[in-house]
Amino acid sequence: MRRNGFAYRLDARDGAARTGVFTTPHGDVPTPAFMPVGTKGTVKGCTVADLRALGTTMLLGNTYHLHLRPGEELIRDLGGLHGFMRWDGPILTDSGGYQVFSLEDTRKLDEDGVTFRSVVDGASVRFTPERVIEIEAALGADVAMAFDHCPSLPSDRAGVEAATERTHRWLERCVRRHRELGGEERGQALFGIVQGGSFADLRARSVEAVTSHDLVGYAVGGVSVGETRAEVLAAIDAAAPRLPEDRPRYLLGVGTPRDFFDAIERGIDLFDCVTPTRHGRTAQAFTSEGPLNLRNAKYARDERPLDARCDCPTCVTGYTRAYLRHLTKSEEMLGAILLTHHNIRWFHRLMAEIRGGIARGELARVRSEWLPQAEPTTSQPAE
Amino acid sequence: MRRNGFAYRLDARDGAARTGVFTTPHGDVPTPAFMPVGTKGTVKGCTVADLRALGTTMLLGNTYHLHLRPGEELIRDLGGLHGFMRWDGPILTDSGGYQVFSLEDTRKLDEDGVTFRSVVDGASVRFTPERVIEIEAALGADVAMAFDHCPSLPSDRAGVEAATERTHRWLERCVRRHRELGGEERGQALFGIVQGGSFADLRARSVEAVTSHDLVGYAVGGVSVGETRAEVLAAIDAAAPRLPEDRPRYLLGVGTPRDFFDAIERGIDLFDCVTPTRHGRTAQAFTSEGPLNLRNAKYARDERPLDARCDCPTCVTGYTRAYLRHLTKSEEMLGAILLTHHNIRWFHRLMAEIRGGIARGELARVRSEWLPQAEPTTSQPAE
Repeated sequence: MRRNGFAYRLDARDGAARTGVFTTPHGDVPTPAFMPVGTKGTVKGCTVADLRALGTTMLLGNTYHLHLRPGEELIRDLGGLHGFMRWDGPILTDSGGYQVFSLEDTRKLDEDGVTFRSVVDGASVRFTPERVIEIEAALGADVAMAFDHCPSLPSDRAGVEAATERTHRWLERCVRRHRELGGEERGQALFGIVQGGSFADLRARSVEAVTSHDLVGYAVGGVSVGETRAEVLAAIDAAAPRLPEDRPRYLLGVGTPRDFFDAIERGIDLFDCVTPTRHGRTAQAFTSEGPLNLRNAKYARDERPLDARCDCPTCVTGYTRAYLRHLTKSEEMLGAILLTHHNIRWFHRLMAEIRGGIARGELARVRSEWLPQAEPTTSQPAE
Repeated sequence: MRRNGFAYRLDARDGAARTGVFTTPHGDVPTPAFMPVGTKGTVKGCTVADLRALGTTMLLGNTYHLHLRPGEELIRDLGGLHGFMRWDGPILTDSGGYQVFSLEDTRKLDEDGVTFRSVVDGASVRFTPERVIEIEAALGADVAMAFDHCPSLPSDRAGVEAATERTHRWLERCVRRHRELGGEERGQALFGIVQGGSFADLRARSVEAVTSHDLVGYAVGGVSVGETRAEVLAAIDAAAPRLPEDRPRYLLGVGTPRDFFDAIERGIDLFDCVTPTRHGRTAQAFTSEGPLNLRNAKYARDERPLDARCDCPTCVTGYTRAYLRHLTKSEEMLGAILLTHHNIRWFHRLMAEIRGGIARGELARVRSEWLPQAEPTTSQPAE
C-alpha cells in the first residue's frame, strides 16, 4: 500500500509474524515497533533528543488528556503536536475511547456520543465521533485513531455486541468527518479499530465491518482491559488473520515482552504501552535476566549495571544497581529518568531483535533468548 | 601554587576580580566557576552526560546527606563519590556544618562536636571535626571542606566570635586528621573556612587564623544564612583581600547572578548554590531579560524559547515557553528537567562570559549586559 505520503511495505514473514516498514509523512517506522506513550505531550522523563538516542521512531499522544489540557486549539496554533512537543518523527493519537469509557461513574453514553466531566476543571465535555476527529485533526498527528466504544469488563455477549456494532456506526461517522476535513491528503491517516471482545465470531464480523473502509491501517482494540491472556490471544487469533496484509496492524495498549511475542507471532506490527515509563518511575527495570525491582535491599551494593547486554545510556554510563537503588530510596528524579531511559531502550532493542529474527526466520530463537524469565506485571493502558 | 596534583594559576585580573584555572586530580576548573549542587549524589534532574553537555566542570556533594544515606562506607566501597555518581570530573564535598547548625531544635553542641538526630531514621548522629574529615575521606571528593561552626542568625557579636574561635580550633583538628589520613597525597585537598559574620575585625582575625594553615584553598562561610546583602558584601570585603592570591577562594552557598558579580568583583573564584536546580523545579527560568515564572498565564501561547540568546539544549531544541508552561501546569517531570538544564547552562554561560570579561578588562560591561533585570529570589543554601 502506498498513497498520500503513507505506505506499508512487507519485507519478510516468519509464520504469521511480519517485518516491514510503515511510512508516514514524518518518517519511517520499521515494524514490529513499540511506541512510547506521551500522554500529556511528553514521554515522561524524556527529552526528544533522549527519545531519538533511545531509538524511538514513533510515539503516541492521548487525545483525551490533550483536549482537557492544554486544548487542541492551542496545540494546533503552536504547530500541532509535532511543533508543540518538538518531535519531528511520526506520532499517533489515540481517540480517547479507552479513557472515556473507563470513567464508569461520570460518563453518559447515547448513540450520538459520550458526555463526561473534565478531571481538570469539572466542566462537562462531549465527545462524538465527529468531535474526536476534529480534535485529532487539530493535534495533527500522522495517525488518528477512530473513536470507538470500548466495552468495559465484565461485559456479557450482548453488551460486547452492542458496543461493537456502535463502534462500526461511529467509524462511518469518523471516516466521513475525516474525509470532510481533507482526509489523508492533509497528512493524517485514520486507523479503524476492531472490537468484539473475546468472541471470535464478533471479532470476525468486526474485521469485516471495519475493513469495508479502505483505511491506511487497522487496530485491534478492547484488549488489555482486564481479560485473561487466553482471551486476548483468542481475540487476536480471530482478528489478525482477517486483516489486509498490506496494511499495518496495531494492538492497542499492550504490553510486556511476552505480550509482544504472542501478538507478533499472530501478525501484529505496532504496540504502545506505558509499561517502560511507568515501571521506570516505580523502580522496576526490564533486563535479560528478568525484572529487577530496585527497591530490593539485595541491590544495595550491587555494582553491576541493570543489564550487562544493554546499550542504553544508563547502562553504558556505568550507573550501578546500587546507585539506582540509592536514587530510588532517596526519591531522586534521576532514578526515574535513568530507569525510564533504560526500559524504553530495552523495548526498542527487543523490537529490533524481533525484526531481525523475523527477517532471518528465527523468531522462535529470539523468543527463547528474551523470555527465559518471568515478567514484572501485566500491562496497563494509560498514565 | 602547584602541589600534589592541585594547582591554582592566576591568568588575569580586572580590579579585584580574577580569572584563572583551579587544577584538581580529576581535571581543571576555569574560574570564576559555578558548581551545581548534587546533594544526595545527584544534581537533581541531570545525568552526568547532561552535566558535561551543559558545561559543568566541578560539582558539589553534601557530606551530611550522603552520610545519612547511603552512608560513606557504601560510597567508598563503590569507588567513592566519583565512581558512585559516575562523574569523573572534580567534586567538592561540603562538611555538613551548615546543615547541622540549621537543626536548631535537635542538635546539641559541645566543644568536641555536635550531636543530632538523623532525619532518615531518627538515630543519634555525632559529628566531630575528625569524624567529618573521615567521612569526607571515604567520599573521596577532590576537595573536602573543613567542619566549621556556622553561627545561625540572629547572633550577637559574642555568639559570632565564639563560633569563629571554635571554627579555628576545629580547623586545627581537621588539618591534623586530614594529614593522618594521607593528606593531599591521596588526592584530596582540604579547604579552610573563614567565619566572623558581618564583623570586619572578626573576619580579618579569622582569615589570619585559617590561612595560618597552608591549605590548597580557602572559603568564606557564614554568608547566605539570612543576613542582608550589605552584610554579605561587608563580610567579603573584610575577608577576600586578605586571602593569599595564589589559592582559589570559594564563597559558600551563593547565589544569584547579581551575587556572583558582587563577589567576583571582590576577588571570589568559586560558587555553589541550589538556585538553578531548585528554580528549575519551581518553574522559574533565568533569562537575559530577567526571570520568568512559567506558571504565569501570559506564557500560555508564547512561542519563544526561554532565552533567545541561550545555547542550552532546551532552547536549542526549540521548546517554547508555552510548552514549558503546559508541562509545569501538568506537573510533568520533563518541565523540571528542561528548566533545570536551561538554568544550569545559563549559570555556566554567565561564568564563561565573566571569565572572558575579566581577561579583557571588561567585567563592568559584562555586568551591565547581564544585569539589566531584577532577579528571581535570594539564594538558598541547601536542597
